[in-house]
Amino acid sequence: MEQDKLLRLLNDVRNGGVSPQDALLKLKMEPFEDLGYAKVDHHRSLRHGIPEVIYGAGKTAEQISGIIDAMRAHGNNNVLVTRVTPEKAEELGKFISVEYDAVSRIAIYGRKFEAKTKGYIGVVAAGTSDIPVAEEAAVTAEALGNRVERLFDVGVAGLHRLLSRLDVLMSAKVVIAVAGMEGALATVVGGLVSCPVIAVPTSVGYGANFSGLSALLSMLNSCAGNVSVVNIDNGFGAGYLASLINHIGEAEA
Amino acid sequence: MEQDKLLRLLNDVRNGGVSPQDALLKLKMEPFEDLGYAKVDHHRSLRHGIPEVIYGAGKTAEQISGIIDAMRAHGNNNVLVTRVTPEKAEELGKFISVEYDAVSRIAIYGRKFEAKTKGYIGVVAAGTSDIPVAEEAAVTAEALGNRVERLFDVGVAGLHRLLSRLDVLMSAKVVIAVAGMEGALATVVGGLVSCPVIAVPTSVGYGANFSGLSALLSMLNSCAGNVSVVNIDNGFGAGYLASLINHIGEAEA
Amino acid sequence: MEQDKLLRLLNDVRNGGVSPQDALLKLKMEPFEDLGYAKVDHHRSLRHGIPEVIYGAGKTAEQISGIIDAMRAHGNNNVLVTRVTPEKAEELGKFISVEYDAVSRIAIYGRKFEAKTKGYIGVVAAGTSDIPVAEEAAVTAEALGNRVERLFDVGVAGLHRLLSRLDVLMSAKVVIAVAGMEGALATVVGGLVSCPVIAVPTSVGYGANFSGLSALLSMLNSCAGNVSVVNIDNGFGAGYLASLINHIGEAEA
Amino acid sequence: MEQDKLLRLLNDVRNGGVSPQDALLKLKMEPFEDLGYAKVDHHRSLRHGIPEVIYGAGKTAEQISGIIDAMRAHGNNNVLVTRVTPEKAEELGKFISVEYDAVSRIAIYGRKFEAKTKGYIGVVAAGTSDIPVAEEAAVTAEALGNRVERLFDVGVAGLHRLLSRLDVLMSAKVVIAVAGMEGALATVVGGLVSCPVIAVPTSVGYGANFSGLSALLSMLNSCAGNVSVVNIDNGFGAGYLASLINHIGEAEA
Amino acid sequence: MEQDKLLRLLNDVRNGGVSPQDALLKLKMEPFEDLGYAKVDHHRSLRHGIPEVIYGAGKTAEQISGIIDAMRAHGNNNVLVTRVTPEKAEELGKFISVEYDAVSRIAIYGRKFEAKTKGYIGVVAAGTSDIPVAEEAAVTAEALGNRVERLFDVGVAGLHRLLSRLDVLMSAKVVIAVAGMEGALATVVGGLVSCPVIAVPTSVGYGANFSGLSALLSMLNSCAGNVSVVNIDNGFGAGYLASLINHIGEAEA
Amino acid sequence: MEQDKLLRLLNDVRNGGVSPQDALLKLKMEPFEDLGYAKVDHHRSLRHGIPEVIYGAGKTAEQISGIIDAMRAHGNNNVLVTRVTPEKAEELGKFISVEYDAVSRIAIYGRKFEAKTKGYIGVVAAGTSDIPVAEEAAVTAEALGNRVERLFDVGVAGLHRLLSRLDVLMSAKVVIAVAGMEGALATVVGGLVSCPVIAVPTSVGYGANFSGLSALLSMLNSCAGNVSVVNIDNGFGAGYLASLINHIGEAEA
Amino acid sequence: MEQDKLLRLLNDVRNGGVSPQDALLKLKMEPFEDLGYAKVDHHRSLRHGIPEVIYGAGKTAEQISGIIDAMRAHGNNNVLVTRVTPEKAEELGKFISVEYDAVSRIAIYGRKFEAKTKGYIGVVAAGTSDIPVAEEAAVTAEALGNRVERLFDVGVAGLHRLLSRLDVLMSAKVVIAVAGMEGALATVVGGLVSCPVIAVPTSVGYGANFSGLSALLSMLNSCAGNVSVVNIDNGFGAGYLASLINHIGEAEA
Amino acid sequence: MEQDKLLRLLNDVRNGGVSPQDALLKLKMEPFEDLGYAKVDHHRSLRHGIPEVIYGAGKTAEQISGIIDAMRAHGNNNVLVTRVTPEKAEELGKFISVEYDAVSRIAIYGRKFEAKTKGYIGVVAAGTSDIPVAEEAAVTAEALGNRVERLFDVGVAGLHRLLSRLDVLMSAKVVIAVAGMEGALATVVGGLVSCPVIAVPTSVGYGANFSGLSALLSMLNSCAGNVSVVNIDNGFGAGYLASLINHIGEAEA
Repeated sequence: MEQDKLLRLLNDVRNGGVSPQDALLKLKMEPFEDLGYAKVDHHRSLRHGIPEVIYGAGKTAEQISGIIDAMRAHGNNNVLVTRVTPEKAEELGKFISVEYDAVSRIAIYGRKFEAKTKGYIGVVAAGTSDIPVAEEAAVTAEALGNRVERLFDVGVAGLHRLLSRLDVLMSAKVVIAVAGMEGALATVVGGLVSCPVIAVPTSVGYGANFSGLSALLSMLNSCAGNVSVVNIDNGFGAGYLASLINHIGEAEA
Repeated sequence: MEQDKLLRLLNDVRNGGVSPQDALLKLKMEPFEDLGYAKVDHHRSLRHGIPEVIYGAGKTAEQISGIIDAMRAHGNNNVLVTRVTPEKAEELGKFISVEYDAVSRIAIYGRKFEAKTKGYIGVVAAGTSDIPVAEEAAVTAEALGNRVERLFDVGVAGLHRLLSRLDVLMSAKVVIAVAGMEGALATVVGGLVSCPVIAVPTSVGYGANFSGLSALLSMLNSCAGNVSVVNIDNGFGAGYLASLINHIGEAEA
Repeated sequence: MEQDKLLRLLNDVRNGGVSPQDALLKLKMEPFEDLGYAKVDHHRSLRHGIPEVIYGAGKTAEQISGIIDAMRAHGNNNVLVTRVTPEKAEELGKFISVEYDAVSRIAIYGRKFEAKTKGYIGVVAAGTSDIPVAEEAAVTAEALGNRVERLFDVGVAGLHRLLSRLDVLMSAKVVIAVAGMEGALATVVGGLVSCPVIAVPTSVGYGANFSGLSALLSMLNSCAGNVSVVNIDNGFGAGYLASLINHIGEAEA
Repeated sequence: MEQDKLLRLLNDVRNGGVSPQDALLKLKMEPFEDLGYAKVDHHRSLRHGIPEVIYGAGKTAEQISGIIDAMRAHGNNNVLVTRVTPEKAEELGKFISVEYDAVSRIAIYGRKFEAKTKGYIGVVAAGTSDIPVAEEAAVTAEALGNRVERLFDVGVAGLHRLLSRLDVLMSAKVVIAVAGMEGALATVVGGLVSCPVIAVPTSVGYGANFSGLSALLSMLNSCAGNVSVVNIDNGFGAGYLASLINHIGEAEA
Repeated sequence: MEQDKLLRLLNDVRNGGVSPQDALLKLKMEPFEDLGYAKVDHHRSLRHGIPEVIYGAGKTAEQISGIIDAMRAHGNNNVLVTRVTPEKAEELGKFISVEYDAVSRIAIYGRKFEAKTKGYIGVVAAGTSDIPVAEEAAVTAEALGNRVERLFDVGVAGLHRLLSRLDVLMSAKVVIAVAGMEGALATVVGGLVSCPVIAVPTSVGYGANFSGLSALLSMLNSCAGNVSVVNIDNGFGAGYLASLINHIGEAEA
Repeated sequence: MEQDKLLRLLNDVRNGGVSPQDALLKLKMEPFEDLGYAKVDHHRSLRHGIPEVIYGAGKTAEQISGIIDAMRAHGNNNVLVTRVTPEKAEELGKFISVEYDAVSRIAIYGRKFEAKTKGYIGVVAAGTSDIPVAEEAAVTAEALGNRVERLFDVGVAGLHRLLSRLDVLMSAKVVIAVAGMEGALATVVGGLVSCPVIAVPTSVGYGANFSGLSALLSMLNSCAGNVSVVNIDNGFGAGYLASLINHIGEAEA
Repeated sequence: MEQDKLLRLLNDVRNGGVSPQDALLKLKMEPFEDLGYAKVDHHRSLRHGIPEVIYGAGKTAEQISGIIDAMRAHGNNNVLVTRVTPEKAEELGKFISVEYDAVSRIAIYGRKFEAKTKGYIGVVAAGTSDIPVAEEAAVTAEALGNRVERLFDVGVAGLHRLLSRLDVLMSAKVVIAVAGMEGALATVVGGLVSCPVIAVPTSVGYGANFSGLSALLSMLNSCAGNVSVVNIDNGFGAGYLASLINHIGEAEA
Repeated sequence: MEQDKLLRLLNDVRNGGVSPQDALLKLKMEPFEDLGYAKVDHHRSLRHGIPEVIYGAGKTAEQISGIIDAMRAHGNNNVLVTRVTPEKAEELGKFISVEYDAVSRIAIYGRKFEAKTKGYIGVVAAGTSDIPVAEEAAVTAEALGNRVERLFDVGVAGLHRLLSRLDVLMSAKVVIAVAGMEGALATVVGGLVSCPVIAVPTSVGYGANFSGLSALLSMLNSCAGNVSVVNIDNGFGAGYLASLINHIGEAEA
């Protein structure tokens, strides 16, 4: 697409519709708007086919609100803000009306995309402490228009809890496996399903978990071939990536 | 499916067609064959819809040949053997006829699946030393019936080499990004495309690359949201996973 | 016992049967014999109730033979030598007659203890590459007089292979779980059985397994409460420890 | 047992007493109760022969109380809650009556099992700062019905303190060795006793102890063959595992 | 220069202008003044041709003020204080008049050197969270008399943001590249420009960034040959070093 | 000495002056007193020839006071308490009269030993932030009766500061070198003096100092042969060890 | 420049001299030539103003020769090949005439640039084992047309060796400091000179040097502000970067 | 001394006996001789009062011989060469007559200093595999004129072996404790003796010993206050340092 656009622009230059100088300027200026504290990229949602996403950690409520305003001015009416603490969510509410989910720590501006996919994303979490990360993945995926099925507290030390829900797992189009400690869930799930599995190590645990290193290494070394891994506690990335996969084939249907 | 089968078996028990003792036995015995040095799983290829794969490292040519024989006896005529050194490939040839690719170190028994997918997998490699890993991914994907497009030696320190092939990248259904050293390729590619990117860190480099740790950490911390990571040098895993993603929507088409 | 002995010695001193000087000398001289390159501890087998064990790595065949001779001279007719390469085993055979097992790399002098325990030790290994370590554990345990049941190639990415042998696992008095890569086997087995599980991480794998670190951390962080861990590739330690546990209650029976 | 039950269920299906559909449902539904924030496993205490245990860290007092209620409703009147801060213990007291031990940070609902074992567990701690972890192990073991003997502040830099209590150590059926800093206690104790030793590294220390890594590595590399290791600061795991070992042979007595 | 001075001193000794004892004293006493809590080096600014710099972290406002006083007494009227929190800046203001920049956390006593260099330093930052470190570099460089051009929020996952400002980058005499997370910016910038690039890894990120390790390793392994690296978050060092490079050739102009 | 005593005790047993049972009891009971929270070792100061030392971190003021009381009751009138925060020092003052030094965080009960050694200990610190650790070493050494010479803020990036005090360094009997960051001071000092150098890495620094790891590794790899290293921030250990060395030859003088 | 070229191309499109399709093609095809195993970038030497450089490790003599041929065909008559073992150099000589330096392991095709810079680069190495890395830096710099002064075996444990050559150091325009083990040389040199210092940690040493980690961390934490660091053993990078700095101001002179 | 000399030189300058230029030259030229591949420091043996030492690893036999020749020419007739493999020793013998010890891998040119110290150094080694490192320490110490007592194979898992030789340990003036694996020996020895203990971690072990890291960390965290640590496998450093300590007070006697 970027290429199509370049070709079109070059055609316009040839036709005299656009001067070379303007073309150069256009190439440089168009894609984003500079708010000083952030460059808002108004093309990204079009290019990637999704609502805009703001990583909320390390930004003030006022900055977040300002970025949403800029997006809104360009017609983006769906914005996801991740890593928002309850305190920041409250403060953010003074500037702009958002829907806040305390477990996943996600604030949503505008309406979530409706879940219109036939396929669904399975989100599996090992322990109760892993739920915030799992919910970050699940809420992200839902906001991006996906059907999501949750299976929480199904750690592999009590295998029957997982096996009793095998049917849900095995019909998913893609599975997100969230686990801290020894992170074995990803491998067991990877062996049970035949779809792609996105593993999210969490920092849950203590001592020799070294803040998530144990689960991370465990998942990277999974002997199941359909497992790939994202950063420790990166629920958003897993939800985003799962959405990309879940939407394949849907548009054409 | 596993569930359907269990239900059918239970029905057979009810009907008296199968005794409870036999049912128990059946549940326990069926799924694999024990060769002594390996348990060959004859259901896996059916379950996962792919040729059988043997991880060749640490197995003798004779053992590999034995496993292929057992598979063949159950009707699996397509087997992929990874991590086969040229020496082992030669020895393997004494037992069984395989096609060997020296760059990817993959031996294939039987015929590769034909590439009948409409979508293709882009395989991008940063440097020439990353090619063996990239080829392991590419050959795996091809063997699993995928169309593959290769872009090698396009490291981000010479960005124009990558940008000049942007069209190939941007039309891929899924991209595999292979890089050692600083592993920056995964993030740059992740930002350029809107499809899933599977990042493969390699052990290529020296000194503070700590046998692939630098590229691994770099890729796990990618600021591009569509990137997930597999183990260092794990070309096979990337190819296998990319194939799963590339086949989504194809069967229905 | 050490205390009983001290008390007895003190009584002898009181009775005049032993002079204070001799008592002091006795305390210092008795427990071992100095071969120059090793101090052979002739009391240890009595104290610990097991055959003598020699760690073979880093000792020459001649040194090993010399140590066995010294042991034999004190009535120890059962000696286990671990980490013996085939080459060293051959050379050792020139000095002394031993039985050598090439998979576990263990050489045994004298006869193995007969397995007279009622309870047995389950030895579970994830992959075929983990078998040498698992056999080091199993052969050690057998040499120490234990009944052993082996379950090899039952990695958790193919859960049915493990579940089909659940009965063997669940009746064991203690289980040794041997796994490399992501080491998930220990946790899954720990959740399935109610006896102690000794986890042995192996260095099997590549890349981000960092020579066994991934399996080690995974096992240390196991969410199953009945799992403890020994050093990477330490099959001997696991077999020895399992034997201690398996013998509890047996003597009294 | 799981297998016995499956066989019985299959027999019921054959007899027509249970329909296949109901059997499938039963298999899936029975083992646990879903509280939303946790899946309570009512079979586990039966399967493992112990009181229920709740890992208290990361759960609210209300959630803990809710889980205990669910357990109580299924007849489990003994519940151990670990990692409970004094503040949480106080809050928990508002919901349910528990006995709280501030040193081990354990809250007990119901009565502790009576210590009826003949054998006892030795709990050895190197320094005064290691006592909380040692008490977590000791109180856990006592709650599970074991006799426990404590030896605290017996670090190996003052060997006579440990040697003066050798008799207590040498008569134990299993020993738990708790130490931070250089963790040498585990090896010295391992060499003195002939029973299994469970080593618990603690995060006690500073600088190059790297939050417990020094003691952990020290214990994993112990040259004593009867030592296995649990996670850093994991007193509960050690107490639980020691209880399993201490109960061997007891039931039959 | 140090040598010239020594030679001159030796000549003075020869000429009898300075006694050997005085010369020795002079050599030992001259270069710094001892404030008790710090040795102030009054020659350094002369030797290095720059304002004095005080590392503010870990020093009280009173100590900082005292050091500035001592410098002032020796004619140094330009002092830069780094790592000053807003609270400390306020307290420092009670002792001495400084100009404080809250983003870079730098306090400046006296006037900044005027930017009289023809060449300029490009300061490039990947994300908004990297700005404080980037500003520490930029303000340091400006204080040392350099012209600085800033390009912030130009992370490589949105390559067009960086490419649109290529002209600024390519005309710089030296570039400082500041990035956390995967740190890929340094390599991409290194490939685009032909001047020296000083890479500053930041601790921005979470999980497997391990407090800046990921960006640090990434930058050290850069496949661009013109990149060198300073400590994590060390904006000052990068600014100082860039100033040294930017001043080369200027003095002669 | 321990041996002399044993011989004497054995003689007493022989003479009938002591019964064997009493001898055993004596061996076990004598060396320390059990306060419940600590075992106070009344022989240690005699054996080691120094005042008693209490590691204050992790002990309450009341516990510290109790231990001092027990020591005093056995005639130890000199006690050093390390790692005492100002708050704890104040609270400790309510129980017992101690002299507190806020920089070294050491509280002393009783009088310091007088410095009667002819030789002295040089304590060298690289930066002002290293002073607390250096003072812990210096005050410890002084309390143990040593003459101490301090050289602070003599980091090797300003070599003349160190060289100007070379005379002090070169006449020391033993030198303690305290440095954080790159820890180069230890090697430079090691090369300048011919006496033993005890290196103390500190956690001073940020980023890639990884809490003292950089200085620790630097000092362990020192190319000066007379350097040995203690734990990060372990000023006490260095002072104690330096005192042992400084006292050699003194007693005989 | 890249921008000028784009503008010119756009002008050509406007003028009708180039069709949009051709322009697009031109943008994509021009910058490099694809040899299959490598993309040779014929613009790079122009852009960066230096001879071409080939990283020889992991390339066969034949591949290296092929790349040189391709470069030669585009008028590049100066090629530097790094990391060439003596064996490979000999084999390379069969294909093409190169000058080989066995210490630095560099092969040069064509003539080295003449050293016409007024300023020179000081290359300082701590120990004799660091010389190969130092020579890689020095020979690289010389090949790029720089005057180089070498100071080898001047480790800081023998400070006088370094100080005796202070004059050479202090007149350099940029210094490369090469050291393994504790890497202190970089900091000491950084404090002595006022020009930029490029530190090269080497893997020289053993034990706790962890293959260069000790020197790397030491250099990154240098308390001298003018020090930046390249990868372990990366002599080439240091030489290349130093050349860039040394040429500043020269062209204009 | 260095200072005395400087003063004398300055006096000579004043007296006109030495010109300033000559003085400067003298300061620069005197201390060492440049062999090209090494700077031989002829003052060091005088300054440090010991034979010259050459670190043999990484030097050819010819280079070693050349350095010895240069030393000899300046009157140094005692040279110690460490880390000499048997092969290199043989080759070295072709150039120069040395005495070679195969266990410690040390070659000695000239005669060893006679052991004339009253005090002795205790060298304690945990296992037989630690003996080469222990011998490097012992032979070094002997070559430097010390009396040495060896206690080998006294690992703490068999405490009686160590305790039986307590008398030897307790009379030493300084003890070197050599251990791999868990390195507990250093702490136990440190607690038993009251003299300084130099701990040498070795790389002996496997798996989680991480090439000596386990013993290194263990020793650094020793709870015995009289322990300091040198690099992994650094027997020479320990022997050298122990000699410095052992000679204190001797000269005066």
